Amino acid sequence: MDNIRVRIRDDFWSGYQERVTDTVIPYQWEALNDRVEGAEPSRAIRNFRVAAGLEEGEFYGFVFQDSDLYKWLEAAAYALRLRPDPELERIADEAIELIGQAQHEDGYINTYYTIKEPDNRWKNLYEAHELYCAGHLFEAAVAYYEATGKRRLLDIACRFADLIDRTFGTEEGKIRGYCGHPEVELALVKLHGATGEERYLKLAKFFVDERGKEPNYFLEEWKRGRPPIWGSGRPNLEYNQAHLPVREQTAAVGHSVRAVYLYSAMADLARLTGDDRLREACDRLWFNTTKKQMYITGGIGSTRLGEAFTFDYDLPNDLAYAETCASIGLIFWARRMQKLEARSEYADVIERALYNTVLGGMSRDGKHFFYVNPLEVWPEASLKNPDRRHVKPVRQKWFGCSCCPPNIARLLASLDDYIYDIDEAAGRVYVHLYIGSEAELAVAGREVTLRQRSGLPWDGTVAFELSVSGGDGARLAFALRVPDWFQTAEPILSVNGEACLYRMEKGYAIVEREWKDGDRMEWLLPVETVLVSARPEIRANAGRAAIQRGPLVYCVEEADNGAPLAALSLEEEPALSERHEPNLPGGCVVIEGSGRVPADMDWPEDEPYRPLRSATRPKRFRAIPYFLWGNREPGEMSVWLRY
Amino acid sequence: MDNIRVRIRDDFWSGYQERVTDTVIPYQWEALNDRVEGAEPSRAIRNFRVAAGLEEGEFYGFVFQDSDLYKWLEAAAYALRLRPDPELERIADEAIELIGQAQHEDGYINTYYTIKEPDNRWKNLYEAHELYCAGHLFEAAVAYYEATGKRRLLDIACRFADLIDRTFGTEEGKIRGYCGHPEVELALVKLHGATGEERYLKLAKFFVDERGKEPNYFLEEWKRGRPPIWGSGRPNLEYNQAHLPVREQTAAVGHSVRAVYLYSAMADLARLTGDDRLREACDRLWFNTTKKQMYITGGIGSTRLGEAFTFDYDLPNDLAYAETCASIGLIFWARRMQKLEARSEYADVIERALYNTVLGGMSRDGKHFFYVNPLEVWPEASLKNPDRRHVKPVRQKWFGCSCCPPNIARLLASLDDYIYDIDEAAGRVYVHLYIGSEAELAVAGREVTLRQRSGLPWDGTVAFELSVSGGDGARLAFALRVPDWFQTAEPILSVNGEACLYRMEKGYAIVEREWKDGDRMEWLLPVETVLVSARPEIRANAGRAAIQRGPLVYCVEEADNGAPLAALSLEEEPALSERHEPNLPGGCVVIEGSGRVPADMDWPEDEPYRPLRSATRPKRFRAIPYFLWGNREPGEMSVWLRY
Repeated sequence: MDNIRVRIRDDFWSGYQERVTDTVIPYQWEALNDRVEGAEPSRAIRNFRVAAGLEEGEFYGFVFQDSDLYKWLEAAAYALRLRPDPELERIADEAIELIGQAQHEDGYINTYYTIKEPDNRWKNLYEAHELYCAGHLFEAAVAYYEATGKRRLLDIACRFADLIDRTFGTEEGKIRGYCGHPEVELALVKLHGATGEERYLKLAKFFVDERGKEPNYFLEEWKRGRPPIWGSGRPNLEYNQAHLPVREQTAAVGHSVRAVYLYSAMADLARLTGDDRLREACDRLWFNTTKKQMYITGGIGSTRLGEAFTFDYDLPNDLAYAETCASIGLIFWARRMQKLEARSEYADVIERALYNTVLGGMSRDGKHFFYVNPLEVWPEASLKNPDRRHVKPVRQKWFGCSCCPPNIARLLASLDDYIYDIDEAAGRVYVHLYIGSEAELAVAGREVTLRQRSGLPWDGTVAFELSVSGGDGARLAFALRVPDWFQTAEPILSVNGEACLYRMEKGYAIVEREWKDGDRMEWLLPVETVLVSARPEIRANAGRAAIQRGPLVYCVEEADNGAPLAALSLEEEPALSERHEPNLPGGCVVIEGSGRVPADMDWPEDEPYRPLRSATRPKRFRAIPYFLWGNREPGEMSVWLRY
Repeated sequence: MDNIRVRIRDDFWSGYQERVTDTVIPYQWEALNDRVEGAEPSRAIRNFRVAAGLEEGEFYGFVFQDSDLYKWLEAAAYALRLRPDPELERIADEAIELIGQAQHEDGYINTYYTIKEPDNRWKNLYEAHELYCAGHLFEAAVAYYEATGKRRLLDIACRFADLIDRTFGTEEGKIRGYCGHPEVELALVKLHGATGEERYLKLAKFFVDERGKEPNYFLEEWKRGRPPIWGSGRPNLEYNQAHLPVREQTAAVGHSVRAVYLYSAMADLARLTGDDRLREACDRLWFNTTKKQMYITGGIGSTRLGEAFTFDYDLPNDLAYAETCASIGLIFWARRMQKLEARSEYADVIERALYNTVLGGMSRDGKHFFYVNPLEVWPEASLKNPDRRHVKPVRQKWFGCSCCPPNIARLLASLDDYIYDIDEAAGRVYVHLYIGSEAELAVAGREVTLRQRSGLPWDGTVAFELSVSGGDGARLAFALRVPDWFQTAEPILSVNGEACLYRMEKGYAIVEREWKDGDRMEWLLPVETVLVSARPEIRANAGRAAIQRGPLVYCVEEADNGAPLAALSLEEEPALSERHEPNLPGGCVVIEGSGRVPADMDWPEDEPYRPLRSATRPKRFRAIPYFLWGNREPGEMSVWLRY
């Protein structure tokens, strides 16, 4: 967006961005080079060196290992946009050269196939991730080009995209297939945006349109006998959203990251091609995902088996998958839905996923990560019950399948792009997220500088200061999002110290007027502590409440409340109070309240069951923000409390 | 036991035994011959025909498929003991001949190895189940010999046992290993009992003693490269209780059926060899299993992964495995613990497992079975959440791995053996279970006939009538078990209409006196409806109560109470009432009570979460015996209710 330039300057978020530039990106570079002690090896760089003929060796890792380097490069590009860093740029340029050396004459790049199965290109679209990896290459190329102006990676990407365009399509002799893991579709839209090349948009549309059509490509490929990577079994078409043509899909199914990457591309194409049926499918899938299959933390994916959605209202807390990448993908999708139509629910979901699951997915030190984000943890069960082995009670250094850490890096490093939009036709500036920042906006023919300060997530005071180019006032509107935090009061707007009315439109407070240089706008959002319940169909949360304060979901931990946490229930009037707690990473607001536990917690060892005695005794409990869980001694954690 | 002859004559249980003889055994014969439409094929008979050279073909099914035929034969033997049936005996004799034809010259029998891997006998004890199948053959042989006096199958079994004895042992040149699936150990004890052959007892002791010793046999076998059946991976030693020498084991681990079969043999050997360390291990494992890892229904095994125990107090209701066979094995083990020491807790566990999980495992028609016995069911989740796919909301016709149906048959057909014991030294008759029956007892030098009538499980009136041989009175004691049903009152004993005191000993009411022909004893057990809670460490049941009435655990079903069941909670004073309900199979006592549901069950579709409103409205609920669940429209079911 050339008409918006944003730099985050925020008490809360700037620290995270610095962690990404100063720690996460360098750390991940070490990880990609297998130099992190005690972490799972990556070998991503080494695979490229082998594929480029610079080193002897075997391919190592997952078939999609290349994408870790591409996602890192994309994050590095955003980091370079945040601040110059010649050393990082030098490393990135070298990595780009390495990628170029691994590229075949015809444009093809994929170290797995180059090293291991050179004759099997494109023969196992169900499992191979060739197009998926290409997609991440394209995203990195666009980001690096936009950050540095250097075309080298973009040229590499376009050569590969051109090969893909020559290889795939409805025309005679081309492969009429698509990737098992959607990603290339949204990446081709970006490549189209950066290059203006219509073929790339058409190719993205081809991949989206073909998906799930009869005869089903993956079934045909299976009947032909695809050269197996993991197995040669009959494809699970729901797993990768190829069970129905996309315009006929009504519920989110299958692998949740695949799903939201696909839906992101669908939203892009609906906007760019004006395809109403595609847009209706996006609306239906959005409704299903966010109203029926989303955890209160913005997590999605209810089972580790297939890292997948299950079905409406099936949201187990202890078995949740809620992969960090899936919430990141949900944010990508929401951002695109927002561009289709500025309704506040999209930013609400972005905020929910961002402040809770995504932030929770990374430690404050930027070196430890969650892949899975459960809403209830019993560490002993994670060790001893294989159904819960995916649930880790502490953040890990790296993963054999390390998709999440670089995904967090690229999202946080590009968070500047999620705050504002301009509706040029309406002369309107949308403020989606309240994150302290400085924005240069070209709107209604004027240059406007908007300085935002925000106390979130702790305090709902948001202030804006305007600079308007030229001498006289500028007539334009601001659309300020009214968050979905279950507030009882309405936000209060004042301009230059005077109360100001606003009208609501699709969840945004619209204030239109003549703005002058130096005008100030204050926007007071009621940040209240609220007990939240889930609808009765969400069986896992029956008789339970969660604590939310502003955008933050809270949880109780064993470190504060002892174990078993399940013994704790909320008092009918829990008398919640708030307190600043400096002893958690970064400091935070903790919430204390009145609960009850059984009067007799200490049963004779030989008594597993006995006649019910319902006597209880009071117990004061403490809740902390969910995103900070797991930063102390490993212990139990729970978001939903009995009441 | 030659000094006890029992025939069940009981309003409740005789029907089940008739179902076994009239329906289950004939039905299972059809299943073993692949003549049940719509059921998974068995091919068990066909495998024997192929192995015997009577038919061409491949082996089909699991490596332990033979055991289905052996378990069926054992059940058939008990059925023949219940009542003569020439046609059944003819079929059984033919099956026995077939087994004989499949036996090798040297005594070996196993259709998998005979057909598929003749050169790999005994080379994969970790997976192969050769000794496991042998064990079931031995059990069948002993039962058939005892029921019919025919030695043919016993001779086949002894020839095989002799081969095993020549093959396994600590002596030079013998294999110092043991079976991945314990079973042969307890079977060899039975074979020893029937034949008096000491070698078989010694061999059982060898297998038990070797288990888990260093160097670990399964690790050595793996290092040698065992010829794989399912895989060649490193063995999971806990899975089959080979992680430690058995005398050092303290907690039940691994595959739960394997565990209880092993512990059964351990209890046998502790009794027969007077081995105190083995007995202490049995006591520890019993305590751990029944006090820390057992569901209120008598189910064991908390995860489908490995069909296994997990760890103390981890008893998820919705993911429970609680395999029918595991509860049957628990009953086998309890019966042997009882013979080690007559403490009432063993019969308490037998009763709990029998009336709830085992009975629940079979439909009243004798043709449908549960393999898995969950305590909470959401049918949609069973279909759409792969973590819950093992939980079936309706009983199935047969299973690919069909261990459970014949196991139910052999237990119910031999239930007569679980009611009484005689302590000859003390001149005492133990009554463990209250099941209407006629028993001929040789005790204190007299022939006593004891006729028991019992109203259980519905009504706790138990009456005994004695016939004593010879003219004069017989001095002997009865030990009547006082059940662990959480009663508030004590049972009342009267003899010939007059109140009679008793003294308690290890959970039994002891009444010793001079008994005369025609004496009557009445034993009034208080059958009350009780709300039961679980200890706080059992996190799944926090804030919940179960309903129990006498030996029966109750549950609520969607058919009576609507869905979602999770929305229902118990009133603080639930005003429980009882009512006879003829419209469930066999008729039963249903319990009704006062509950509450959220006042607003009907939320707008776009509202997954909202601020808590705790308003509720009353709702009368109905609970039915757990063993009768799943006999109406498939729907939700739950044992533990919120209160």
